[in-house]
Amino acid sequence: MNASLDGATSGPTVSIIGASGYSGAELTRLILRHPAVRLEHLYAFSQAGKSVSSLYPALGCDRIYRSYEGETGSDIYFLALPHGEAHAIVPKLQAAGKMVIDLSGDFRLRDTDEHERFYGGRKSPDAVMTYAMPELSREAIAGARTVSNPGCYATAIILGLAPLFARSSALPRVRSVACTAISGLSGAGRSSKTELSFAEMSENIRAYKVGVHQHTPEIMQALGTSARNPSFDFSFTPLIGPLVRGIYATLSVTLDGPVDLKEARSAYEAFYRNAPFTRVRSEMPEVRHVAHTNFCDLHVAYAGQHGTLTIVSTIDNLLKGAAGQAVENMNIMLGIDETAGL
Amino acid sequence: MNASLDGATSGPTVSIIGASGYSGAELTRLILRHPAVRLEHLYAFSQAGKSVSSLYPALGCDRIYRSYEGETGSDIYFLALPHGEAHAIVPKLQAAGKMVIDLSGDFRLRDTDEHERFYGGRKSPDAVMTYAMPELSREAIAGARTVSNPGCYATAIILGLAPLFARSSALPRVRSVACTAISGLSGAGRSSKTELSFAEMSENIRAYKVGVHQHTPEIMQALGTSARNPSFDFSFTPLIGPLVRGIYATLSVTLDGPVDLKEARSAYEAFYRNAPFTRVRSEMPEVRHVAHTNFCDLHVAYAGQHGTLTIVSTIDNLLKGAAGQAVENMNIMLGIDETAGL
Amino acid sequence: MNASLDGATSGPTVSIIGASGYSGAELTRLILRHPAVRLEHLYAFSQAGKSVSSLYPALGCDRIYRSYEGETGSDIYFLALPHGEAHAIVPKLQAAGKMVIDLSGDFRLRDTDEHERFYGGRKSPDAVMTYAMPELSREAIAGARTVSNPGCYATAIILGLAPLFARSSALPRVRSVACTAISGLSGAGRSSKTELSFAEMSENIRAYKVGVHQHTPEIMQALGTSARNPSFDFSFTPLIGPLVRGIYATLSVTLDGPVDLKEARSAYEAFYRNAPFTRVRSEMPEVRHVAHTNFCDLHVAYAGQHGTLTIVSTIDNLLKGAAGQAVENMNIMLGIDETAGL
Amino acid sequence: MNASLDGATSGPTVSIIGASGYSGAELTRLILRHPAVRLEHLYAFSQAGKSVSSLYPALGCDRIYRSYEGETGSDIYFLALPHGEAHAIVPKLQAAGKMVIDLSGDFRLRDTDEHERFYGGRKSPDAVMTYAMPELSREAIAGARTVSNPGCYATAIILGLAPLFARSSALPRVRSVACTAISGLSGAGRSSKTELSFAEMSENIRAYKVGVHQHTPEIMQALGTSARNPSFDFSFTPLIGPLVRGIYATLSVTLDGPVDLKEARSAYEAFYRNAPFTRVRSEMPEVRHVAHTNFCDLHVAYAGQHGTLTIVSTIDNLLKGAAGQAVENMNIMLGIDETAGL
Repeated sequence: MNASLDGATSGPTVSIIGASGYSGAELTRLILRHPAVRLEHLYAFSQAGKSVSSLYPALGCDRIYRSYEGETGSDIYFLALPHGEAHAIVPKLQAAGKMVIDLSGDFRLRDTDEHERFYGGRKSPDAVMTYAMPELSREAIAGARTVSNPGCYATAIILGLAPLFARSSALPRVRSVACTAISGLSGAGRSSKTELSFAEMSENIRAYKVGVHQHTPEIMQALGTSARNPSFDFSFTPLIGPLVRGIYATLSVTLDGPVDLKEARSAYEAFYRNAPFTRVRSEMPEVRHVAHTNFCDLHVAYAGQHGTLTIVSTIDNLLKGAAGQAVENMNIMLGIDETAGL
Repeated sequence: MNASLDGATSGPTVSIIGASGYSGAELTRLILRHPAVRLEHLYAFSQAGKSVSSLYPALGCDRIYRSYEGETGSDIYFLALPHGEAHAIVPKLQAAGKMVIDLSGDFRLRDTDEHERFYGGRKSPDAVMTYAMPELSREAIAGARTVSNPGCYATAIILGLAPLFARSSALPRVRSVACTAISGLSGAGRSSKTELSFAEMSENIRAYKVGVHQHTPEIMQALGTSARNPSFDFSFTPLIGPLVRGIYATLSVTLDGPVDLKEARSAYEAFYRNAPFTRVRSEMPEVRHVAHTNFCDLHVAYAGQHGTLTIVSTIDNLLKGAAGQAVENMNIMLGIDETAGL
Repeated sequence: MNASLDGATSGPTVSIIGASGYSGAELTRLILRHPAVRLEHLYAFSQAGKSVSSLYPALGCDRIYRSYEGETGSDIYFLALPHGEAHAIVPKLQAAGKMVIDLSGDFRLRDTDEHERFYGGRKSPDAVMTYAMPELSREAIAGARTVSNPGCYATAIILGLAPLFARSSALPRVRSVACTAISGLSGAGRSSKTELSFAEMSENIRAYKVGVHQHTPEIMQALGTSARNPSFDFSFTPLIGPLVRGIYATLSVTLDGPVDLKEARSAYEAFYRNAPFTRVRSEMPEVRHVAHTNFCDLHVAYAGQHGTLTIVSTIDNLLKGAAGQAVENMNIMLGIDETAGL
Repeated sequence: MNASLDGATSGPTVSIIGASGYSGAELTRLILRHPAVRLEHLYAFSQAGKSVSSLYPALGCDRIYRSYEGETGSDIYFLALPHGEAHAIVPKLQAAGKMVIDLSGDFRLRDTDEHERFYGGRKSPDAVMTYAMPELSREAIAGARTVSNPGCYATAIILGLAPLFARSSALPRVRSVACTAISGLSGAGRSSKTELSFAEMSENIRAYKVGVHQHTPEIMQALGTSARNPSFDFSFTPLIGPLVRGIYATLSVTLDGPVDLKEARSAYEAFYRNAPFTRVRSEMPEVRHVAHTNFCDLHVAYAGQHGTLTIVSTIDNLLKGAAGQAVENMNIMLGIDETAGL
């Protein structure tokens, strides 16, 4: 492979722990061509010893996945591990003074009871992390050394609702939100489950974890409330459907009083004025308009009744919902252009 | 083709007007193998003169689509025409004493203002039709000569909500329903629109007609209220996605008081006890479980908060949502087994 | 479920061993509504104890899969087992005088060395079976008690070539055949392999077993030659692609002398004149024209050069390529209409 | 949009004529982020006046498609027009001394009779162009000002066969090639044909133009022979299937004598040693391994018989088969790294 397909030849070094999953592969692709950082090691577990080109030939990368043995020699670490496996690794990287971006759910929830309820395990009690969604907390991310990258559904849904919960919002208070969100099947990871085979999922749609999805407390936390004692009714129905990438969320919002559609749209546009990737669009969003990009596309519609809005939000679950947002966060942490390499 | 693939050799004769579209083709398939009626003529418009086998070779049927010139010689007529085209034809068939099942939206709405608002045209003022959803009005259908077959989204959504609006219901009153429903692309008919091409819709999802879909007043009417002056808040977000057949509707329902999940499920089971095709399932419904069948699969879940339920409803849009329900209605009108030929 | 969805109430009884796979489910569907036979037992292995409705709700069937313990009480047995598992069962059913239709590869090859080479195991040496492709050997099937149902690729390819190898053929001798055939992913069975997941196979195509597919000797045997000492060059490239059902085979044939397209087409039409399911079409075959049917659609084209033809052949791999052909064979064995229930 | 998503800020200027089709959109994406050239104008015809962001929001580009009125102000012109429309434009750009890369079929065939037969029209008689496939004629491209970019099928097939026709080849002479190639539906362009709708093409495959595809003479010309008087038998069966991007070609090759698989593979590896994008792989190629890349993946297999090989070749039809190869050609013409921006 020609060297010119790679990116920077100087700058901080990056290693990815959990590089052989779908999010890890997208991180690999983004870091390989990033203008300001250099890819150092790719760590995997069951795939250690295999080459990137055997699993992801499209990356045009000849490196070998290594087994992670606690190394701390790179400047920046991305962790793209299954939930529960980052707990043990992050504290050591923090202790070594490394910059860490964790893509798992291990450090997203501040409330340990909620974490216990939705993720089962107990998170490392001393680890404190910034919940890193650039549109909500760019300044906190800029000052952080260790951040927790948001979940995929959570990203689409929080970005779809945040302007309604902003302190600056002059809109009526939100009373309830009913959310249905369809995810592409890459969201389930590289899977060998029969129910995720092509033969079962082509031409198919299925709901799952209705009312009990682990992104619910994350969404509530980001909007300034909690799943246990919410300031508004929230129902969430996740679906999987016959596509690989993408999340398409519809949010039916009831407000405490009448709402003017034009004002609502202006509030959204103002809120995202400085966000390079979140776009408030007058056209209806489509998954193909954000697939293979770091964009989140939003549309604000009037549902036809007093005090109700319908928000449509769509992202690529592997990019804005995982690897893309992680690189965006790294850029902010490094103090470079937020869009570099994206 | 071997004659034995055809169904009855005696019984009433059936003709289909608008037989060359997707619903018409499903009607053709069902009537060809129906045990109690005989297929007489297939009428089409732009496809008149072509053979069934040139458009739908899977049907194994050598007949030729004829041009419809006002004939009234068959015993039973199905109309599977674009909205607005049944108005002129139905009165003549009624006058000739024929049994008529209309699959268009022309006669679904009793309120002519609502019809005007959502369908644009003005319906034939003297034509009166039974709105024919077997689960809601089997007796009225049994006594009718002319019926209006429900819309596809409307079928999935009404069946998902009807038990909550039944007179016999002991559940709290419904305060709001937020519905998101994904339709397969056969719902748009045999189309030549760029935005419905495979290249645009594979791996894609798109919302449309948010808050203004023409099935909204039909749903409200069937639930005993109206879109103009509704007894509950209703928001409806229709989506199209990358599948050919199927509607998958999620209904987030807020009730006026606390609800017990077990009681709610019992209410649904009781309501559909005698319905041969609508199934209240403990497993999560999937499109592939109803595709190519006349089933509607329902699931009742607790959304996790005081007074809220999530209902999932799925059908095959071309069968239970169109041709299958139409044959079911014909069976009831003829006084034969409701499931004959389905 | 209403009883009327089931078929016959008298006639021979049928049991299916291996009923929980995709072919078994199609057999179940076909036998449930067959006009001349009655479904008795459904046997499964890992799924024994589960209900049909939990695995295949679309069938509308409440039966429970039973564990097979050597019962021989039904009149007719279909075996839809993985290769290698019918060997032990068939001889006992034969000894009990039962009618047996085996869908596996265990008894397809007469040459035990070829069987050894392509299937690894050794077949039951005393079991003799009729290779049951109706278009080739209707009379032998009619007199048989135990038959071996052809493979899916083999069916599409043999039907695409048979007229060229017929004794009655006046066409030049076949010198070489290059075949590429794409199969839908149901052909791999109910699978939990990562490489067959939706996330890996959507928008994907992959060749496999190039030159070594186990249907090669079956095809050669059916055409009157052998894979070890073939009378013509045969190359076979199987592909899997992003569809559930269907095989689409293209056959590039070189003949020993010039060929007239019209004569070639006439030869095909004559050969299949009495075949109710194999159609020689002037239009180009498409998978959707045969999906969910028992048809095989063929098209004969002139490849543009002296002595070459291109044949296109398509079937539904689960029906004409498995369960449908098996029921067709049963009908012939029972002496009833070949198309009954199909 | 943040300016940093764009590429170079100095270097030659590029305009694209026919920028609103699928190949044009890929060209736009590649040029926008190219490190050495600057995008100047995007010309369209029926879409003139619309914004890029209304048709291709994923590009994150706010420019407006302009109507082309004969401007010659840019340094480099890509033409991505329907066949027949480049004839009139190219000579003027040549006369103005511009660098031109034409993606249409208008200038691919040197033999005007063949052009007449397959494309119908008559090409501009004085225009002479280099047929620009980097793997075959890198040096000629480097010295050219105006080049004709290969067709999509032609690229996959020529790259799959070229080593067998190389002067340096020590392999036996090729006697016949039977090719079946499946294309994704983006190959048909932004289409509004019913037969290319999602509802018709999901779960479907269809052959077309069997033996008469216009890429046949292009392939023969590139391999040093002609379609009218070929040095070997060539049959070509193009298929369309349910995917958006990608071509997957299988080539069954008969040689004049015995062939050793290891030698054949070595010949391929040697031939493509210096090609940065064409990879001879020991694993089986898959569409997803080349989709969204400029790679061509090849695999050489032994078909199991004396003197036969099976070659598998796959590309992304919009990249290596169109826009990617066009940028690769521009890079070579500019004397910069062949992989820049790819």
